[in-house]
This record gives sequence, C-alpha cells and structure tokens, in this order.
Amino acid sequence: MTTPGAQPPADLVITDCTVLVPDQDDRTPVPTPAPTLAVLPDHAIVIRDGLIDTLLPSAEATGIDSRERIDARGQVALPGFINCHTHAPMVALRGIAEDLPVEEWFNERIWPIESQLTERDVELGARLACAEMIRAGVTCFADHYFAMDRVARVVDETGLRAQLGWAYFSSQGPEGRERSLEFALAHQGSAGGRITTALAPHAPYTVLDEDLAQTARLAREHGLPVHLHAAENRAQTDNSLKEHGRTPIEILERTGLLGTDLLIAHATGLIERDFAVLARATGRIAVATAPRGYLKFGWDTTPIAELARIGIPVGLATDGAASNNTLDVWDAMALTALTQKQSTRDPRRLTAREALDHATRQSAQALGLADRIGSLAPGHRADLVLVDLDGPHTQPVHDLAATLVHSARSSDVTTTVVDGRVLMRDRQLLTVDVRETVAELAERLPALTDRSHGQRIQTYEA
Amino acid sequence: MTTPGAQPPADLVITDCTVLVPDQDDRTPVPTPAPTLAVLPDHAIVIRDGLIDTLLPSAEATGIDSRERIDARGQVALPGFINCHTHAPMVALRGIAEDLPVEEWFNERIWPIESQLTERDVELGARLACAEMIRAGVTCFADHYFAMDRVARVVDETGLRAQLGWAYFSSQGPEGRERSLEFALAHQGSAGGRITTALAPHAPYTVLDEDLAQTARLAREHGLPVHLHAAENRAQTDNSLKEHGRTPIEILERTGLLGTDLLIAHATGLIERDFAVLARATGRIAVATAPRGYLKFGWDTTPIAELARIGIPVGLATDGAASNNTLDVWDAMALTALTQKQSTRDPRRLTAREALDHATRQSAQALGLADRIGSLAPGHRADLVLVDLDGPHTQPVHDLAATLVHSARSSDVTTTVVDGRVLMRDRQLLTVDVRETVAELAERLPALTDRSHGQRIQTYEA
Repeated sequence: MTTPGAQPPADLVITDCTVLVPDQDDRTPVPTPAPTLAVLPDHAIVIRDGLIDTLLPSAEATGIDSRERIDARGQVALPGFINCHTHAPMVALRGIAEDLPVEEWFNERIWPIESQLTERDVELGARLACAEMIRAGVTCFADHYFAMDRVARVVDETGLRAQLGWAYFSSQGPEGRERSLEFALAHQGSAGGRITTALAPHAPYTVLDEDLAQTARLAREHGLPVHLHAAENRAQTDNSLKEHGRTPIEILERTGLLGTDLLIAHATGLIERDFAVLARATGRIAVATAPRGYLKFGWDTTPIAELARIGIPVGLATDGAASNNTLDVWDAMALTALTQKQSTRDPRRLTAREALDHATRQSAQALGLADRIGSLAPGHRADLVLVDLDGPHTQPVHDLAATLVHSARSSDVTTTVVDGRVLMRDRQLLTVDVRETVAELAERLPALTDRSHGQRIQTYEA
Repeated sequence: MTTPGAQPPADLVITDCTVLVPDQDDRTPVPTPAPTLAVLPDHAIVIRDGLIDTLLPSAEATGIDSRERIDARGQVALPGFINCHTHAPMVALRGIAEDLPVEEWFNERIWPIESQLTERDVELGARLACAEMIRAGVTCFADHYFAMDRVARVVDETGLRAQLGWAYFSSQGPEGRERSLEFALAHQGSAGGRITTALAPHAPYTVLDEDLAQTARLAREHGLPVHLHAAENRAQTDNSLKEHGRTPIEILERTGLLGTDLLIAHATGLIERDFAVLARATGRIAVATAPRGYLKFGWDTTPIAELARIGIPVGLATDGAASNNTLDVWDAMALTALTQKQSTRDPRRLTAREALDHATRQSAQALGLADRIGSLAPGHRADLVLVDLDGPHTQPVHDLAATLVHSARSSDVTTTVVDGRVLMRDRQLLTVDVRETVAELAERLPALTDRSHGQRIQTYEA
C-alpha cells in the first residue's frame, strides 16, 4: 500500500513469478559443497535505482506504485547468468576454423585473421555478441580482447554489465602492457558503474615472466584484478615443465600473480602439485571453465571438485565463439554438470543445484562481484532473467533445479534485466539492432578473413 | 507454369529456402567416411501426396498451383531429425531421478514408479513427448515402451512418423513376447503408413537367451526388425563375461539376433572382440547413440569410428527424458560431435558434416527407412524442417554445417512437416494441445510417482 509520505514510485515491479534465492548459507565466501535452493512461489520483485529493493508475496505488491510492471505469471526469476571468460568480438569468426587441433586453429586461422582486425570489426562483433548474450540470459561478461575501448562503448550502449581487460603479449613490447593498464584505469566504473576492468596478459606461454611480474606489481599498486589464460590444456603444462621446470601455475606464483585478485581461464591442464600452490595463494583466485571448447579440442576438463576442496570458486564461461561457436552460458551450465560427471565417472557429482550455484553465485565470486550480483537478494544490483517453463520440453517439473539445468535452454529466457533496465522483454531485444549489425559485419568479413597476407599476430608453440 | 491438362495443384510449396541435399555419394548403403553437403540456395520444395515431388529454383516455382504455400525466406530446409531410441511416455518422469548411478536410478526410482503406470499415463506422456519432438524438429522416433497401442494412437493423431516396439522382459513369461509380436503385426503400416513396428525385447540382461532366440525366429518369420538395449555400458559387458563367458554382443549372435534387422541402443560397452562379431553379422545391424545420458551416468560413449569401419550406421537418439531430461535430437547431434572428439582425443573427428549425416541419413538407415526418409530427395516422404538462422547466435555463417551443428539449436526450428502435413508452423503446434495435456498429467502424477508400495517391475543387476 502506498500512503501519503511513502517513498516515490518503484522503477520496475515484476509480479507473480517463482523466485530462486540463495539459501541461508549463501554468505559463505567459498564454494558450498552442497548448495540448496530456496524457492519463493508467487512472489514479486521490487526494483529501485537499479537495485533489488524488496522480494515479497505478489499479493502484497499490488499497491506498490511503479513506473514499469512485468506480469511474470508462470515464469521463474533467476539471477542473470555471468560469462566469466569470453572474447565477445570473436563472434565475427564463428565457424571459420572447425574440427582443428588448437595449434592449427591459432596459427593457420585465428591469429592470421586477427592481424587484420579493425576497431570497427571489434565494435560490430561485440554488439552482435551482446545481442546473443542478452537473448541467452547473460547479464554480465568478462571479456579479454583487443580494442577494448570499442567493447566498452558497446557495453555502455547495450546496457550489459562487463569486466573488461585489454589483452597483451610480450611480443608487443611494453606498449601492450601499458595500454592494458591505461584502459583499465580509464574505464574502471564507467557505464554507470556497470563496467569494471582487469589487467589482461594473454597467458604464461605468450607473456614473459618479467612482464607477468610487472603486471602483478601494477595490479597491487592500482587495486586491479588480473584475468589471463593459464594451464589451458595438459600439453601446455607438460611443455612448461620441459622448458622452464615449472607448471604454468607455478609461474603465476613465482611472478607474484597468485598474490593478486586473479581469474584463470580454463585450468584444464592442472596437475597434482598445482593444487598445493593454489591453496597457499594469498590473492583471491578463481577459475573460469568453458566446457564446450574442451570437448571440441579433445582436452580434459577443469577439475572442479579438486578446486572446490581448496576453496577456489569456478565460474562458467563460453570462451570465444570462434572456438565454442556459442556464447550460451546456459549450455555451459549443462555441459559443466555433464562433463564433471563423466570425467569423474561419478553420476552423483556436480548436481543440478551445484551447476546453478556455479552459474550464478560462484561466477559472481570469480569476478569479485559477489557483493553486487549473482543472487536475487535485496541490496544486490537488479540483474535478473525470467524463464518460461511452460514449453513441452520443460514439463512436468518434478525438480526445479533439474528442469532448469538439464531441460530448459537459453531460448526459454523471455526477459533480461540489468541494473533494473529491461534489455529484452518477451524475447524482443530493446537495445541492439541485430539486422543492421549483421549486415554491416557481412560487408566487412571478406577483408577480415582473407589470409593471403601470410602474417599472424602471434605463434602458438605451447 | 500450369497449363491446361497439367497435373492437379500441389499440396504444399515451400519457397525461397536454402535446401540441404545429399551429395552424389548418398546412395552408398554404409556410412560415408567424409560426407559432403550440397546446398541449393533460393530453392522451392514442391510436395504432392506426402512426397517430395520436385526441388527447383524458387523463380521457377512461382507458377505452380498449390493448396498451401510457405514463404521460407532466409530459412534452411533440412530433413526432419530422427530419434532412433527413446521411451517417449517417460517424459512424465522427467527430472524425478537425478544425479544417481544407473542401478539406483532403475531399482529405487524408475522401476518402482513404472509398476503403477496406467495406459492413460502412457498416452498423456506420449502426447507431451510428441509435442516436444515436433517443436524440436524431430519428425520420426523409434519408441520402446509399454502400452504401445496408446503410443500408436498418439502418433496417429499428432501426425509424427514412428517405429514402435512393445517392450518385454522374460520375467513376464511368454505373454510379454506374444504381446510384442501381436502389437507389431497389428500396427505395421498403420497411421497411413507412418507407423512401422519392431519386436522389442528389453535387453540381454533381462531377457533369457531362449526368449531372444525365439524373438529372432519370429522376426525372420514375420519380416520384422528387432529393437533392444545391449552393451549399454562397460559394467554390463564385464558382468556378462563373468556370468556367461560371453559379451552381450556375443549373446546376440548366439541367439540369432545378428541375423535379423537389429537396432541396438547404446553399445557404449563394446570391447575389441565385439567388432569382429558385428562385422560378420548377416542382418542389417545398426546402433542408436544417446550421448547426453552417457555423460550423465559417467559412462564411455558409443565407439562410432570403429562401428563406421565395419559399415554399421549410427543413428542419433535421446533415450527417455527420465534419464536424458530432453528429447532434443539437435542436442544429441552436437553432443555426438563433441563427445566423439573428446573420447578419441582428436578434434578432427566427427566433423559437423558427419554429425548432420548421423542425424539424417544414418538415422534413417538405422530404422531401415533410408529409402523413404532422411534426405530431401524427390520420391522421399516429405518429412522436413525449416530452420531460422537469423538469430544473433547463428550469425555470421562462415560454414553452414558448423552453424547448424554447433550454433543453431532446436529452438531455431520454426516449421515441422511430416508426410507433407504441417505439424508446426511459425513455432505454433497444430496437432497437440500442450496445456491440456500437461494439466491432466499433473493431476495423475501423485498416484504415479508414489513409491510407498515397495514394488518394481524388474530388478537391475547388470
């Protein structure tokens, strides 16, 4: 009920939905071994100033004045999914390098093509990627690429949340590292606070130890997190041992990066000795897992159970679409559950509830944003999605977590909200013109994908 | 152009689509090592009497008189997908037995619940399953379950194509086998020819050798195919060797089943000696692979490359939704490509083209229907789907096969046609009322899923 003198109208009220909320143990900072799900039926979500203001039974929300209302009857409200490691602009190269080992994928296709990448290509690719993610219920992504000022512009205009890092190799000289720092400092907190930034060395096999050490110092000095690839596959670990006598994780320790807030992409090549190294890290360490690509390249997958044992959260990711073909975190959630069961040969592992926990709370922890996003709790940013479970493929619902993880798909997302702003409503994108973006990109692709110049931006030798 | 004295109006003309057609080598009866894809841009499909009559450039189709037209501008026409092994009515139990090993899944959950299954439950489950499959672009399914006369009724009314087998265990006495035969004979060619039938012993671990041998004799006598589970996982093979000194495949040979037209579900537990046995089979042997369930149970997957080497086609399948959670063959296609790459550790294996070949032509071969369905060729039944690739997740298209297998999803299917009849148009189901089916099923579920009676229809000891 509004009464004279009550607070001003809400910005958005979503009524009559089933709300998935964290259980009582949600405040524990490390992954919970067996997260439970609390479900609030017939609830309303009241949003003010970009924040979740209140969750209350729908019947009690009828009198609340609001500038916008969504009737979500029969739908489930979830925290928006978080893509913890991607290269959004690479959607421009979706499907251009198929059925290849990683060396050939990089050296013969991707790195030659990327040597011709223009800022406009990056911008168009990022816009198409944002459209794909909004449609799939992704509300935040951690991007690691080039020309990141253009990606930041697209994040600003499309309304998503992102953690952006400008990638660099040692082969670029000090300029690469300096540009990454400049970008991180200039864009931290931009787009109304929706953009956070990270330093983004490419990987221990493309960035020299001295540059990694310098990155660690800069991260501490400026209070910036670091986002890189490491131990992407077992061959990299074996090669690192052969060449340097150290695993990629030991190189991260030696160069001081394990003392920073560090997001490690992939980590499928971890070996036994790495867990002790990670366990004694003094920084906030997290891993992003992108299971589709590991299957596609024929690699092992990220050892999630072992990482959980030492308190390292594992967020979900899609990697870039040039390798994974999709930016669908829902798909990554299902594949994470399935591939963990398969790799451990234990069907009891990675339950549907745990998969949801990785997709939301642990992914927010991985980006250092667990105080802001990843759960539908009053005081958190209003980043959420509505999911329609009325389709024949999601009925009946015996177990909501199983339905969400193993039967529902990203195409069941009807509505995507970031910071209280509706970016997709009833499956209609409100902030991106896909047709126009695709048309301009199509005109530019022949110049981008021509490889007759014989150059590449880097060589993969791991 | 129609001229006086020309043939009567077509039943359906689909214009302006990209048509995926078999390459020149399509008539080879065994799996082609590296199938190529032929693509006809801006083509029309003319359908008469349930058959594909002609494929021709759209410009030449404008004058063709037709009772129904579909403008498929920007869409791709594919053969309808075939679900080569499922238990459609089990959608009623979707999500009821999660994160469990197979013994517990069967003995503690599924078989106790199935002891209370009524014919009405089967009918409602089948109807919901058909809705799910039509929406996902599945035009034909091979079903292996109980109360199959009810499933046949649903196939008739929903318009799908199916190969149906009434399952039996030796524990039912001779009545089980007799009912399976009676059903197969009574329903062969029903629903206007859309229903074919098979004998359906459950598996070598639940059907005695003498009953399998009798099944083989009946199959030959009546010209019926046989559809069963065998070598579902490695533990079954090991157990069979321990108990009988023979693998499940050797039992199939010894009982004469390898002399019939045999569809083997799963076959993830094949060992080296099985390939020689299968290679000398005199019947038309095929395998159905349902990769999602193998990941979920932590099993190996079907050894497709080894089966291809001995000329055995592998069709795609979803198994029942109680284990796989979905009847989505598109998902099975992507997972088949991904898991074959992973299990062989070779990213060059099972290309996107090969995955499409498994989903269409090899699946039709697996059901003995390759002369009728599985490719868009004049004279084949008009079983096809239209797919919208304009979504941001499927753009740009550098490689149509990769886009279809690794980026597109079943939710991109807009239109499903079986035998020339439109079962879904613009994502609207035309032959099933999902809401009514779900509502009645929901009322019946408490009685079905109560396990307090302590009974089960069978015990899993493999």
